[in-house]
Amino acid sequence: MSDFEAVVAGVRERVDPTPEERRALAATAGRLADRARAAIADLPVEADVLQVGSTARGTWVAGDRDIDLFVRFPADLPREDLEAHGLTVGAAVLPDGHEEYAEHPYVKGEFEGYDVDLVPCYRLDAATDIQSAVDRTPFHNDYLLGRLDDDLAGDVRLFKQFLKGIGVYGSDLRTQGFSGYLAELLVVEYGGFRATLEAARDWHPTVVLDPEDHQAADFDDPLVVVDPTDPERNVAAVVSETNIAVLQHHAREFLDNPSEDAFEPDDPEPLDEDDVQSHLDRRGTTPLAVVFDAPDLVDDQLYPQLYRSRDGLARGLREYGFEVVRTATWADDRAVLFAELSVAELPAVERHEGPPVHVADHARGFYEKYADDEDVYGPFVDDGRYVVERERDIRTAREFADEHLHEVALGAHVASLVDAGDYDVLVGESVTGLAGAFGTELAAYFDPSA
Amino acid sequence: MSDFEAVVAGVRERVDPTPEERRALAATAGRLADRARAAIADLPVEADVLQVGSTARGTWVAGDRDIDLFVRFPADLPREDLEAHGLTVGAAVLPDGHEEYAEHPYVKGEFEGYDVDLVPCYRLDAATDIQSAVDRTPFHNDYLLGRLDDDLAGDVRLFKQFLKGIGVYGSDLRTQGFSGYLAELLVVEYGGFRATLEAARDWHPTVVLDPEDHQAADFDDPLVVVDPTDPERNVAAVVSETNIAVLQHHAREFLDNPSEDAFEPDDPEPLDEDDVQSHLDRRGTTPLAVVFDAPDLVDDQLYPQLYRSRDGLARGLREYGFEVVRTATWADDRAVLFAELSVAELPAVERHEGPPVHVADHARGFYEKYADDEDVYGPFVDDGRYVVERERDIRTAREFADEHLHEVALGAHVASLVDAGDYDVLVGESVTGLAGAFGTELAAYFDPSA
Repeated sequence: MSDFEAVVAGVRERVDPTPEERRALAATAGRLADRARAAIADLPVEADVLQVGSTARGTWVAGDRDIDLFVRFPADLPREDLEAHGLTVGAAVLPDGHEEYAEHPYVKGEFEGYDVDLVPCYRLDAATDIQSAVDRTPFHNDYLLGRLDDDLAGDVRLFKQFLKGIGVYGSDLRTQGFSGYLAELLVVEYGGFRATLEAARDWHPTVVLDPEDHQAADFDDPLVVVDPTDPERNVAAVVSETNIAVLQHHAREFLDNPSEDAFEPDDPEPLDEDDVQSHLDRRGTTPLAVVFDAPDLVDDQLYPQLYRSRDGLARGLREYGFEVVRTATWADDRAVLFAELSVAELPAVERHEGPPVHVADHARGFYEKYADDEDVYGPFVDDGRYVVERERDIRTAREFADEHLHEVALGAHVASLVDAGDYDVLVGESVTGLAGAFGTELAAYFDPSA
Repeated sequence: MSDFEAVVAGVRERVDPTPEERRALAATAGRLADRARAAIADLPVEADVLQVGSTARGTWVAGDRDIDLFVRFPADLPREDLEAHGLTVGAAVLPDGHEEYAEHPYVKGEFEGYDVDLVPCYRLDAATDIQSAVDRTPFHNDYLLGRLDDDLAGDVRLFKQFLKGIGVYGSDLRTQGFSGYLAELLVVEYGGFRATLEAARDWHPTVVLDPEDHQAADFDDPLVVVDPTDPERNVAAVVSETNIAVLQHHAREFLDNPSEDAFEPDDPEPLDEDDVQSHLDRRGTTPLAVVFDAPDLVDDQLYPQLYRSRDGLARGLREYGFEVVRTATWADDRAVLFAELSVAELPAVERHEGPPVHVADHARGFYEKYADDEDVYGPFVDDGRYVVERERDIRTAREFADEHLHEVALGAHVASLVDAGDYDVLVGESVTGLAGAFGTELAAYFDPSA
């Protein structure tokens, strides 16, 4: 047995559900469906019940305890009726459940130790007719059920665990990784776990997979997997360029040197204040942290705002002349925009290049703007251009964070906090205080790996 | 009378030689030519005497006291005979003169209060047959004499004084400006002083003038003035891009707002140590000076080496991560390479980007190089590329100047000094000590103007 096979065999033992787990889950799913059908019988409309998701397809990783039941109503049912009937069925099936809201409301609750989602949707002829994203799920389910045999299902479990181990599993907007459905499509399309890694290793983004040969739309994403059930949709749209590269990296490393480690998420020891200080001493950089109460938003709303704010902070610092070594953002009760700068203080002057002297109107305007300005050095001519050395608006990261943060692109909720001044600025050693709430994040930051 | 004409009339009074000056110069030149012809009569070969240069063409600026006499020998005379006869004539004409050497030897001396060059050359049918650069001079003389009338000669004087006033007169390799011959060609070609300024104002480099429509060669210079007597030669080859722009700038300013100031070179008050210190305080920069004994070279050899060394220093500093605000070089008994840096110290780490992860061989090589290196942070993946943060080789400008200066492109003589360690490094406040020898240069540096 090769190293690859030996490692994979070991992982399979952990990720393959046991026969008991399968039987128990099937029994519970059956009872849930029965309860749903009983509730439907009391409604004034027809509906059927469909189990979907990984536990319906045998592609769940051992220990996952999620059951997804969809209740399908006729396509001509008014939306408010669908929502009302859906909640009625949900309440009957999951008496202790509660209402959640995606594109429309559904019921979430616990049943016999499983986490159950009970979701109403429309029964449609084609996925292209969908009225909301959940209507697409039954089509995905059909498509995969028709193509997954036991071997492929096992390889899907392996690949999912691999994606979890390397930190890129999940299509939520915090992770920007690979969804379960995408993982299944890739394994089906490439024909197995190993074939998927070999393909990913050799990807040259832009990568386009189009299982059903729709060739319909152009997507502006580095990885395109055209949804077999909907030509207009790229299943991989959310996957970041970095996460594609991370998969490529680990595919290459694992195929060269198979190890079970790849299937285990990193779980770094949190740093304490002294640890952070010694990293800062070693790096000789100037850290800046903007800290505020995390806006009360679900992660799929919060993280895009934090990422946008982090990038806006970096861009703003660079525009004001700071060299930014790295940035990060973390959230718990408090949220942090973190930027590590090369230097604590910039000089008082900055070189400001004007147009070439021969670009007459432009050049004249530049010259006249500065000719009588006592606060600049110049204008003088260098390499054919006008140049002045003018005073910088700000010289320290703190000044930027205190006075200019509102100028940069921030997420809406972050912008409100910044506009209201509801944020703290930490510079230099004082960022070590973040170790209390973000020791694990700081550990990952100061031990970055591919 | 317009402002322009009023200013120009005032300048003409200063730059036009008086009738007495003209008469006295002509008389002296006549006596010199007589002495030369008398000396030639004693030689075993034929030769004639030709006065050349601005004083032969009426284009000298009042007060200049240079007379250039060329002695033309037959084209078939061996070069060593030409040199020997030339020196014989020179010694007879200028008994107190001394030998100098350009492409071949000539005699320089004083006569009746004038500085006289007595130069042997060949009498040729065409400038394209020349054996050395001096053989071209009689052709230049002929060409201009046939085109310059009194008005144009007066405008040449104005334009030369203008070029002197704005600091771009002289084709020596220190100035990299406009030669007298080039100034005359421009005024002849454009038809006067004002027309030359108007043309220069509107130049869009590359500018090509080809008075005799040779259309022979392609020149890779921003200003091309094809020599009317030699299609292969760009009379403006030495003019730097910056000096072209400086002329454009002043042409524009002067036409907008005529002032006699343009004709007066800046003559800044030297700075003392306190002045330099207060500029450094205001600018908040970190100056670096590399100081060594000026190599014993003529300016045309020294300054190209200093410029090359200055640019090499700047490039080297940038390669090591320093932001360079401005550079300069000065020479007297000692020579200085000066660089003003944004910061005194860089952080210990620097971001080092590797290839995109999908560029398989490259990426693997980069990853493997750093994967087990305990001294780097990473490799990690950012925007699809491998990145490490590695230790900088050096963090201060002094370390660069002490340890890495020999790596950068320097002029040959400067490189020898650097290799031998025969140089001092000043950083920060200690550069104020340069005010003693370079107070005027520092004044120009800290009050740069177009």
